[in-house]
Amino acid sequence: MSLIVQKYGGTSVADAGRIRNVARRIAQVKDRGDRVVVVVSAMGDTTDDLIKLANQVAEKPDKRELDVLLSTGEVVASTLLTMALHSMGYTAISLSGAQAGIKTDAAYSRARITNIDPRRMLRELDNGNIVIVAGFQGVTDEMDITTLGRGGSDTTAVALAAGLDARVCERYTDTEGIYTADPRIVPEARRLNEISYEEMLEMATYGSKVIHPRAVELGEVFNVPILVASSFTENPGTLIHGEVSMEIRNKVRSIAHDLDVAKITVVGIPDRPGIAASIFVPLAEAGISVDTIVQNASIHKITDLTFTVAKSQLAAAMAVVEPIAGSIDARECIADARLGKVSVIGTGMQNAPGYAARMFSTLSEENINIQLITTSEIRITCIIDEAQVKDAVRALHRAFELDRGE
Amino acid sequence: MSLIVQKYGGTSVADAGRIRNVARRIAQVKDRGDRVVVVVSAMGDTTDDLIKLANQVAEKPDKRELDVLLSTGEVVASTLLTMALHSMGYTAISLSGAQAGIKTDAAYSRARITNIDPRRMLRELDNGNIVIVAGFQGVTDEMDITTLGRGGSDTTAVALAAGLDARVCERYTDTEGIYTADPRIVPEARRLNEISYEEMLEMATYGSKVIHPRAVELGEVFNVPILVASSFTENPGTLIHGEVSMEIRNKVRSIAHDLDVAKITVVGIPDRPGIAASIFVPLAEAGISVDTIVQNASIHKITDLTFTVAKSQLAAAMAVVEPIAGSIDARECIADARLGKVSVIGTGMQNAPGYAARMFSTLSEENINIQLITTSEIRITCIIDEAQVKDAVRALHRAFELDRGE
Repeated sequence: MSLIVQKYGGTSVADAGRIRNVARRIAQVKDRGDRVVVVVSAMGDTTDDLIKLANQVAEKPDKRELDVLLSTGEVVASTLLTMALHSMGYTAISLSGAQAGIKTDAAYSRARITNIDPRRMLRELDNGNIVIVAGFQGVTDEMDITTLGRGGSDTTAVALAAGLDARVCERYTDTEGIYTADPRIVPEARRLNEISYEEMLEMATYGSKVIHPRAVELGEVFNVPILVASSFTENPGTLIHGEVSMEIRNKVRSIAHDLDVAKITVVGIPDRPGIAASIFVPLAEAGISVDTIVQNASIHKITDLTFTVAKSQLAAAMAVVEPIAGSIDARECIADARLGKVSVIGTGMQNAPGYAARMFSTLSEENINIQLITTSEIRITCIIDEAQVKDAVRALHRAFELDRGE
Repeated sequence: MSLIVQKYGGTSVADAGRIRNVARRIAQVKDRGDRVVVVVSAMGDTTDDLIKLANQVAEKPDKRELDVLLSTGEVVASTLLTMALHSMGYTAISLSGAQAGIKTDAAYSRARITNIDPRRMLRELDNGNIVIVAGFQGVTDEMDITTLGRGGSDTTAVALAAGLDARVCERYTDTEGIYTADPRIVPEARRLNEISYEEMLEMATYGSKVIHPRAVELGEVFNVPILVASSFTENPGTLIHGEVSMEIRNKVRSIAHDLDVAKITVVGIPDRPGIAASIFVPLAEAGISVDTIVQNASIHKITDLTFTVAKSQLAAAMAVVEPIAGSIDARECIADARLGKVSVIGTGMQNAPGYAARMFSTLSEENINIQLITTSEIRITCIIDEAQVKDAVRALHRAFELDRGE
């Protein structure tokens, strides 16, 4: 008998029929003799609907109140799922984030989990209950409700798995797992049976929307294996964990991409200390999230600085940067909103320089011009023209033979 | 500066526009310099919608889970109202029933308030906040959420007014107050400026749906004046309190009626001890709520027993009573589903026997046959044919001169 944490996303509990389907899946695990804690998201579009309501009553809804409002969506889903289990003859109980002992700081709308007090959950498990926990939420020491921000329910599930010392955190959505590339672009893309935390983190940040990096990070820190699978099929999914076998590590694992890339280049900056700070501190204060940053080596004490942002933030970023460029005597600011990003990811690349060469030559053979290059230990990323991203993904998938079995 | 508790019903907060309207009303009280605690119901049909969802996932939704589910409706309304106040420049905070310190027993779906711990509310008031409390709910000592059942938000408001020693509990819905009769039946019916708890209780039980008797009882016990008024107009409403002036007490105050009356008569019962219990204990066990009970004096040790139930419960009641009637040697059971009830109410009737005579002669003049009569100290009720109820109300309203001013 082991303890398993499962998490079901909003599409998996979008209506009564799907809730009963999820209840049947949970019942199977219980029938196997395991102890089960389940984390649920709000049904379908509930969270968006609540946000709309809030914007109808106030131009700028108060964050504390918004958190309480949004937290009700997950509570509703948790009670309905519990009722469905009861009607199938299983003993179950729903717990809010507060009742489940999920303590957070008071940073409304993006609270961080500070501690898990598992006593109530363990008591309910000992009583034979399946425990259904409302995701995405916690409670401050003042007993005020908070929400965890983006990726919140995934984070709840991994944190509970860590706090309960669960064998695995199984995360179910409408996707079958992690693929060698986006199957909508590369039809022959394969589902990976396993992937390391590091690889998944690079994929999450570089284009994969399957699981939020915050949950993967937490899984890595507490060594919680995370299974990513579909709630609509019986396919085995992809296990994200730390003990990926040696041979599999020694390969490129997947091609990730991102079509939402805009670039700003500040041209002709006098190279002196403090220049980078003078640009990026005001951007951060304006709430603009900067992704890749590249600064070339300076020639004659003059350098160029390039960085990327989401397309939706390009105008705001230019408004911040242009006056600064003037004040630091840069020559000009150039914006480009029509870019994309393609990345080759795999822990196998760490000690093998041939991968970068193969990536660049593959893109060259496709007549794709590389505008920027950045790398991490297990990833090589090229910023290219938006219109060429899909061709690049397909070519790289072939070049690194990802269509062949593991 | 005094402390006022206000309560707004579901129709008053049914959409964003109405929520902003309620916020403006609250702001006026705050501008006057008073401290304000507001109790809200769930928006419009929210509670019914949640119940429908529950019935879609389970044939018989678990009561604990149903309470958690339903409690979210009032939480949503409380946060939206708080946001609306913020956007008007007022400091406000929403509290769930648990956060407001409303402790209850664990009788899910019909919990009783055991205690109010007002410390959090008083702290927020001291901080200058308008406090918005989610109605209809409380929390057990185990920190499990409960709901208070029918009339729940009214009860919350009166209980908070008692616990906070408020000057008045103002209860706003879409009705203007308490009338001398239902204005849909008697066009010349007048709104009463004030009414005693006892009179209101008789009216609530005997046909008025304006405020739940449970809240009125609580108001009487803790001597909390309750103002019943509309959130859509500036009319002064009706004050329910204990200090109604002597002269006003000495009158019939209103005509109440109820069209949902069915009657069962058990005919020819041998009059011996234990007969009544043998009928009414099984009815109670079957969850059937019996209203009026009349047993005539026995003649030759044979008596008839008549009682009324809601029309929807007539078939279930007959199924319980018919076998019992056989076993106690009664002659037969007769059911009649087409009845109504009309009542004359007023504390003035206590020491004045002429009122009953005037009621009976008025009905006689209208050719209305009286089937059953019951009385309390401040009420006379006649059960009559359903089709004659409206005529009876109009005739009695005229006969007792209720169209004239107080």
